[in-house]
Amino acid sequence: MGNVYDGAYAVEKDLREDSTFKLLAQSFEAVKNNETAAAVFSEFTSNQMLLQQKQMNGEEITEEDITAAQAVIEKAQANELIKTLMDREQAVSGILQEINGIITKPLQELYRDVQN
Amino acid sequence: MGNVYDGAYAVEKDLREDSTFKLLAQSFEAVKNNETAAAVFSEFTSNQMLLQQKQMNGEEITEEDITAAQAVIEKAQANELIKTLMDREQAVSGILQEINGIITKPLQELYRDVQN
Repeated sequence: MGNVYDGAYAVEKDLREDSTFKLLAQSFEAVKNNETAAAVFSEFTSNQMLLQQKQMNGEEITEEDITAAQAVIEKAQANELIKTLMDREQAVSGILQEINGIITKPLQELYRDVQN
Repeated sequence: MGNVYDGAYAVEKDLREDSTFKLLAQSFEAVKNNETAAAVFSEFTSNQMLLQQKQMNGEEITEEDITAAQAVIEKAQANELIKTLMDREQAVSGILQEINGIITKPLQELYRDVQN
C-alpha cells in the first residue's frame, strides 16, 4: 500500500505508453503539420472554449450559439485529419472516464450511503 | 509497466486507506446519524443538483437562484457537523484534483503543443 499519488503517477506513465494515447498523439502531430487542418482545428477549439466559458459563468447558451457551434463542428468533421483526431480523442476520453470512475468509487459510495 | 487501469485501482485502494478520506467518511456517518444535520444536508445537496442540472442544460442561473443557494449554504455552514463535512470534502477534493492533474498531464501536453 502506498500513498494515493503513487498510483496516479503509474497511470500517467502507462497512459503515455498506451496505444490509444499514442494514436491520438500522432493525430495531433498530423493536424499540426497540415496548414488547413490546423486552422480549422484552431477555429473549433476557440468556439468550444467560448461555450465552456459561457457555461461556467452561468450565461445562457443561445440558439445562435448552438447553430454557430454546429457549423464549426461540421466544418471540422469534414476534414479527414480532424475527424480522425476527434475519434481518437473520444477513445482516450473513454479511458479517462473509466479511470475516473475507478478512482472516485470510494467517494461515490459515501455519497450514495448518505442519501439512504 | 502495466495497463492504465492497474494504477487507477491502486489509487482507489489507497484512497480508502487515506487519512483525509477516512475523516470525510466519519463526517458523513456523523451527519447521517444526526436528524437535523441530515435534513439540512439533504436540502443543500438538492439545491446543488438543481443548479448543476440548469448549468448542464445551458439554462441561465438567475439572481434568485444565487440568493436561494446562498441561503441554503449559510444554513448548512451554521451546522457544525456539516461545516466539518464540507471542510473535509474540500480536502479530499484537493487530493482528487492533484491526482487528476497528474493523470491528465500527457493530454495537457498534447493540447498545449498543438496551440504553438
